[in-house]
Parts: sequence; structure tokens; C-alpha cells
Amino acid sequence: MTRTARQVQLISRPEREVTAAHFRVIEVELPELRNGQVLVRNLFTSVDPALRLQLRPQAPGGYFRAFPLNAALDGIMSVGEVLVSRAAGFGVGDVVSHGWGWRDLAVVSAGAVSVGGVGTLARLDTSLGPPEMFLGPLGNMGLTAYVGLVRAAELRDGDVVWVSAAAGAVGSIAAQVAKLRGHRVIGSAGSAAKVEYLLDELRLDAAFDYHDGPVLELLQSAAPDGIDVYFDNVGGDHLQAALATLRRSGRVAMCGAISEYELVGPQPGPTNLFQAVANDLTLRGFRASTNLDLLGESARLLGGWLAGGRLRYRQTIVDGLERAPEALVAMLAGETVGKTLVRIGRVEAHRPVRGV
Amino acid sequence: MTRTARQVQLISRPEREVTAAHFRVIEVELPELRNGQVLVRNLFTSVDPALRLQLRPQAPGGYFRAFPLNAALDGIMSVGEVLVSRAAGFGVGDVVSHGWGWRDLAVVSAGAVSVGGVGTLARLDTSLGPPEMFLGPLGNMGLTAYVGLVRAAELRDGDVVWVSAAAGAVGSIAAQVAKLRGHRVIGSAGSAAKVEYLLDELRLDAAFDYHDGPVLELLQSAAPDGIDVYFDNVGGDHLQAALATLRRSGRVAMCGAISEYELVGPQPGPTNLFQAVANDLTLRGFRASTNLDLLGESARLLGGWLAGGRLRYRQTIVDGLERAPEALVAMLAGETVGKTLVRIGRVEAHRPVRGV
Repeated sequence: MTRTARQVQLISRPEREVTAAHFRVIEVELPELRNGQVLVRNLFTSVDPALRLQLRPQAPGGYFRAFPLNAALDGIMSVGEVLVSRAAGFGVGDVVSHGWGWRDLAVVSAGAVSVGGVGTLARLDTSLGPPEMFLGPLGNMGLTAYVGLVRAAELRDGDVVWVSAAAGAVGSIAAQVAKLRGHRVIGSAGSAAKVEYLLDELRLDAAFDYHDGPVLELLQSAAPDGIDVYFDNVGGDHLQAALATLRRSGRVAMCGAISEYELVGPQPGPTNLFQAVANDLTLRGFRASTNLDLLGESARLLGGWLAGGRLRYRQTIVDGLERAPEALVAMLAGETVGKTLVRIGRVEAHRPVRGV
Repeated sequence: MTRTARQVQLISRPEREVTAAHFRVIEVELPELRNGQVLVRNLFTSVDPALRLQLRPQAPGGYFRAFPLNAALDGIMSVGEVLVSRAAGFGVGDVVSHGWGWRDLAVVSAGAVSVGGVGTLARLDTSLGPPEMFLGPLGNMGLTAYVGLVRAAELRDGDVVWVSAAAGAVGSIAAQVAKLRGHRVIGSAGSAAKVEYLLDELRLDAAFDYHDGPVLELLQSAAPDGIDVYFDNVGGDHLQAALATLRRSGRVAMCGAISEYELVGPQPGPTNLFQAVANDLTLRGFRASTNLDLLGESARLLGGWLAGGRLRYRQTIVDGLERAPEALVAMLAGETVGKTLVRIGRVEAHRPVRGV
């Protein structure tokens, strides 16, 4: 028998600003399940800044791949429940994560790495938290914050840490992890309300709204003695300000550059990169997907802090697959708070599926 | 009694190109020697690309300091012999290195770090090589090449290595060390003669003259499968090409950016720095002076290869202190070969000094 699924497809490439009109939601026929595959009903799917890069005709790097036109967007993290399994180790009702999001039903091959390499099909230990948390602190997102601090920035005792986009999904985790490890942490964000959140809820030592002046000046009044670590989610003038403010042997964890994702053509680089030579600085790019060996460690640590109420976590949940493009647009415009997710379905584990 | 010395002073700051007219050689009176000081007759003094930065009104970084006008240039490596010693551990006739070059006689305090931090007064083991070699492979210069490869770039088995300015002082050592450790090494330089030198004398695997086309194209034909390490002496379009060519987990040892030293104002950064995020790249700035713990290791290793004839080393020696500015101009114009030195005097150890 054939089964149909709804999926989001890219139908044209944005020149600059993304709008919902660049996408369509259509119904497609799913192929028959082969051995080694499962059919997953997606519950939540992720809406990440880096998706913006994959809307370009050519995504930067050898790794991010451009989404093809008029096809499903492969390589977006999703959690769901297994409806049918023809793969050893996966049973009906299992809650899993995988890289075939932005659709309601997905045929997933066990062990296959999705385009973009965000991760293979994995069964989730739902005793650690509800499914959507695996798209957040318990999954690659939490891992991104954790790896950025401990591996890319090699966080050391006494480091003063600046996190940009600190009210965002990854940034808020990174800032809190640094605080929980005893560091002085400065956060920056794009609105007064977000700054208030950073100071009042996340209890950062200092915070600023980057609209309030040149970033360099704002940073230097928040960190008059300089910083040792910059967790970069923004790029552009933020990175430039960090290079001018980092002390000897400082480190930049290069997580992303959201300020540049909507720009067309080459992005102007920092004009003061020579600071790296002058001050023995290290800039290190990284992605969670190449540091999956730390996922267990990260999930246990963050899961424990979450359960103990020591880690705050906010998410913006948009209901309905068809609203995924709208959620992306809102997130890129800075209108969402914390992690942005689309809810596609609700958990209905163990309900028998007709026609299987 | 008073003693006079000749020294080079900066008398005006170059807007763009450096000329000898920006300097003067004048005679000054030396202060009386105090306890803990030695009087050194300089034999050779160093002419380095980074001096260019110190001619600016404000040198970049927290570390390089601008040379003051109408004063001696402090912080330039020199080797000489001790004429008079009032410092424990230093005797008349000792050959020493220190940071008070570009003058014929220097009063040096034992243990004092010169402006620029290039190193304290140190007695040299002349059994390892002649004095001028301590301004080259046996000194900070060799250390720069060594540290750049092993510490900044964390050289790993099988890495394909690109060295820019590979016919220059540091570059030629770095390229050879990588070759001697069994790597595939690509060198670039600024003339056909230099490329010939890289291929015929240094036996690199590939080499190109960066004038022969866009650097990216030249690099990618020399390294069609990409590179893992870029030893950057140049910055600018070279760094940009490296970022586009580095494979996953690639590393950039940021040693200097000679292409930018004569530019006025902020230097355009690479427009593709996002590659670092996409491909897990690390860019690490470094200087020899913050890695002095490896100096012994580096000198022994390079000294052994030099003595065994396995390491080629070229230098351009300009005779006479008064020609130091001219040597700097020639070096910045790419007209010198290998390490550029100024010879100020010849070894006359143990000759008694009158008037002491």
C-alpha cells in the first residue's frame, strides 16, 4: 500500500530576506519501507539559524549542503516516534531523533547519515526529558554549547567569557554553563527585553544590547579588563570587537555567524585579524556533529542541571508543519525566544497503525 | 669615563613605503654601567618583517610596541660579545643575544625583557654554530618555524602543508622541517628564482610564484586534494585561499601578515572566515617569544640538521650599522634572500678593552 506524507520544500532561493513564499508544503507518496528502515511520525522539528545558509545556491564550506529546489529539506534534526520498524534495534513506539525533519512522516534508514551530517537515527532515553528537549539541551544543541566551551574554547579556570546571541538557543546554554562553572560571563543580545532576561533570569555578570552603540565600546565597558573567551554566534562586528578585547592566549569558539547569513556574496572579514598573531589568539570553528563523542557527557551534565532547576531553557514552539517557514522567518528576524521548534504531532506511542 | 655609541633612530613615520630617510644614525653617550649590567659590542643585528609594524604610530596588538621617534629602537634581536661585565654569570668575551639591536654598543641589564619581549640577555653556546645563526635557525627565528608547525599547527602524520613566503627566513625553515618530517609540502614565493630555489634546493613537492595568477587557483593546482596545514607568513589573499582549500580539521599557524604591514588603516579580513565553522578549522596566532620553553628543543633539532647538511639556510648580510634602514627597505621589497642581517662588527673576543 502507498502512504502519503506532507513535507516542506524550497521552491525558490531568497535573494536576501527569507519569506514563507520561498517554500511550499506538499503531499508526496512515501516509498515502501525496505529492510533496515523505520517509518517515523515526527513530533517536533528544528528551526536553526544555519538553515539560512542552505537556502543559498551554494552553501559555504565543504559540509553544509544547499537544499535542492522542489525536494524535501534533508538534514534538519527532528524527533518522532517509530510507527513501523524494519530495522533491528528499533521498535514501534520508540522515540527517536534523526535528520529528516520538516515533514510529518519520514522513512529513515538506520545508520544513514543525513545530508548535513546532523546525526543518524538514534533511540532516545526519554527518562532524561521530554522528546523536544533532544532538539535542545539534551541533543546537538546542548552539545554545541558544551563543545564550544570545553573543546573549541578550551575553557580554563578564571577565564572571562563573552557569549553573543546569549538569549538564543545555543548562546543561553553556553552562557549558563560558563556561569555554572564559576566564570565571569558577559552576554549580548538584540533587545532590552533580552538583556533583562540575561541579567535577571540567567544571572549573567553583565549584558548589553548591541543596538546601543558600537559593539566594541559596549563590550569594553562590560569587560574593562578584557576577555579570555568569546563564544561567537554572530560574526561581523562582534568578532571584530572580540579580537580587539581578547587578552593574551585568548580563544574564540566560532559557532556561527548569524549576522552574515542573510548577506549576499562574500562577507567582509574582521579587519583586525592580526591581533591573533600579536596576542597568541586561537580561533576555532566547530560543529556539534563532528563532536558526537561528547554527546553523552553533555546530555548527562545539562540534563542534571535542567532537572535540578539550575539551567534555564526557553523555547518558542510554533504549531503545525505548514508554519515551519514562518517560524524560520521569525527566528532570523530575532522575534523568537530561545530555541525555535515546530510541533508536528503529539506523542501517541503504541497506538496501532492501520494498514501496516 | 663616558663612552659613545652609534645607534639607529626613527625620525619620522612612513605613511606607506619605508625609506632610509625615515631613520638617522647618531652618536649618543652611554650611561655608566650599573650592577647587573653588561656592555655588549654588537656583531649582528636582525632585520625582521614585523619591525614594519613598530614604525606605525600605534602598533597592532597589546604586544608589539611602536618605536618612539628620536630614540633607539628597543626590542630588536642582536648578538654580540661582552666587553665589560658587572652582571653575575656573564664574563668578558661571552657571546650573547639580547633585544637591544640596531646600535653598535649596548648597555644591557641581565634579566631585563626588552620592549617587544624578544628575549632577555642570554649567553650562547657557540659550539652549536657561529653567532649570526642565533639570529636564525638556532634562535627565535628557528623557534618561530618550529613552534608554528608543532604547537600552533599541531602537525600530524600525513598532513599536507602549505608554507607561504617559503623562500624567506622563517618560511624556508618551516618548509624544510615539514619535509624532513615526511610531509608533502607546497611552498609559495614572489619570484621565479625563489620558486626554483624551493623546488631545486629545498626539494619541496610543489611551489608557485603568487604573481602567476589568483593565489587560490595556483594553490589548488599545487594541492588538488586540499591542504591540512597552512603556515601563514603573508595574510591577505593567501589566507583567503588557504581557508577555501583546507580540509576538515585543518589548521592555520598565523605567523605574520607581511602583505599587510605596509597598508595604512584597517586591513580587509578574509571574506570566507565562515569556512572555519563549516570545516572545523583552527586559526592560531603565535610568536616565538611566548614559546621560549621550546627554544632548546628547537635549537638542538635544527642545529643537528644544519650540521648534518640536511637543512639549507640562506642569509643576506648587509655590512655596516648605518645600512640597517636600507636593509629593512630591501627586505620589505622582497629583494633580500633568506634571513636579512646587518653586520655591525666582527668577533674579537678576549681583546682587552681600553679604559675599562
